[in-house]
Amino acid sequence: MEILITNDDGIYSEGIFALYDSLRKAGNVTVVAPDTERSAVGHAITLADPLRVAEVSRRGKFFGYSTSGTPADCVKLAIRAIMKKKPDLVFSGINLGENTGNNILYSGTVSGATEGALLGIPSIAISLATFIKPDFRHAASFARKLAALARKNRLPAGTLLNVNVPAIESRRIKGVSVTSQSPTSFNDWFDKRIDPHGRTYYWLTGKFSQEDDRPDSDVTAVNRGRISITPIQFDLTDHKFITELKKWKF
Amino acid sequence: MEILITNDDGIYSEGIFALYDSLRKAGNVTVVAPDTERSAVGHAITLADPLRVAEVSRRGKFFGYSTSGTPADCVKLAIRAIMKKKPDLVFSGINLGENTGNNILYSGTVSGATEGALLGIPSIAISLATFIKPDFRHAASFARKLAALARKNRLPAGTLLNVNVPAIESRRIKGVSVTSQSPTSFNDWFDKRIDPHGRTYYWLTGKFSQEDDRPDSDVTAVNRGRISITPIQFDLTDHKFITELKKWKF
Repeated sequence: MEILITNDDGIYSEGIFALYDSLRKAGNVTVVAPDTERSAVGHAITLADPLRVAEVSRRGKFFGYSTSGTPADCVKLAIRAIMKKKPDLVFSGINLGENTGNNILYSGTVSGATEGALLGIPSIAISLATFIKPDFRHAASFARKLAALARKNRLPAGTLLNVNVPAIESRRIKGVSVTSQSPTSFNDWFDKRIDPHGRTYYWLTGKFSQEDDRPDSDVTAVNRGRISITPIQFDLTDHKFITELKKWKF
Repeated sequence: MEILITNDDGIYSEGIFALYDSLRKAGNVTVVAPDTERSAVGHAITLADPLRVAEVSRRGKFFGYSTSGTPADCVKLAIRAIMKKKPDLVFSGINLGENTGNNILYSGTVSGATEGALLGIPSIAISLATFIKPDFRHAASFARKLAALARKNRLPAGTLLNVNVPAIESRRIKGVSVTSQSPTSFNDWFDKRIDPHGRTYYWLTGKFSQEDDRPDSDVTAVNRGRISITPIQFDLTDHKFITELKKWKF
């Protein structure tokens, strides 16, 4: 099995190392990831600038390719220019911090997997729901299990999986839930500050956690100590509203 | 009516001037837009850096606020920090180049309107289907018509409109179609080149046009000389696949 791994925390992050160490037991792994952190880049791609690619070592051995691009760039570049064979699976992660609710729109991690699905490859985004003292082991071994399941069963064309693992001890994880994207967002605002030169700047901040009580949502599953798996797709059409919109007098 | 305008071509682009000149006849317009082009940034937001805001003049008069952020940043900043009142409508555009099919995932223009909808405001993205010699007049006056329609009728919470205007003379435009997002993408690839210092770089290129024969798609409408209006939303859940996915043996 040929597996492509990317992420948005950058090629030197612990999360991608953990994912690599686990998935290499399941197949032949190629890593193509951003050379620095690219969090919250959404589904950005680089058009106005060239992309650079460099070989990266880890513990004295070749590890993968870093690029100057976004996660979506990395997947496009891997499939169109770097890999000799199309991968059978694309994994993006393991992200530091959960990707649930409406915040997945901003997620570079999800966008790496979305680009894989756009290019016709079964794709999985995986995140660990913490920003501090992450222990990626359970998420990494669950990723390997998912790789086998995704090969055995099949993902429909254009559908990817968005996986979020709660940051608790393995034995305390209560199971796996298939979920829907919660309609909740972070409660964010801007800090207005003055720089040392007397000029104003704004910095996005907020309460980067979510509350939800919908039993089927990704946010609820993670809050209740369960692994959340949301099937997502990228036809954004609001099909239900089409009939109503046709009545507007254009 | 309070209207917020943003775009992804930057605050000095002809498309935003045309939209402003038209919409100010319909209400009180605030412009908050990127200080330079931010095409293909998707739904990126800026977390790791502060945002700067500057006042921009046009023809010797105050025109709006430029920011160092993305279109999504601009809308967030406008609503959370710059505008005294929440806008009644958010417009993003007029973009140079169509935003149809799967390519809307990469679109900064669409993402500006998506951020408006995320913040609970009726929002519209508008694009002109050409990269050369644009004449924004018809798109601009259609935007004003849409502003009135969106006030009179109502957009459901979480639904925005993605509008694409064909780049042909007004009198040749054949009407308006309510459409679905085409499942087609650009056919893109990378040019591999060597820089003056002997180092390799990659530059994304491709056939940035789409073909489709689905009668209801955005791509088809524009190709046939019609204005395309696609209602879009941001619940990415593949609801149809949930039952099937629950059968996987996690």
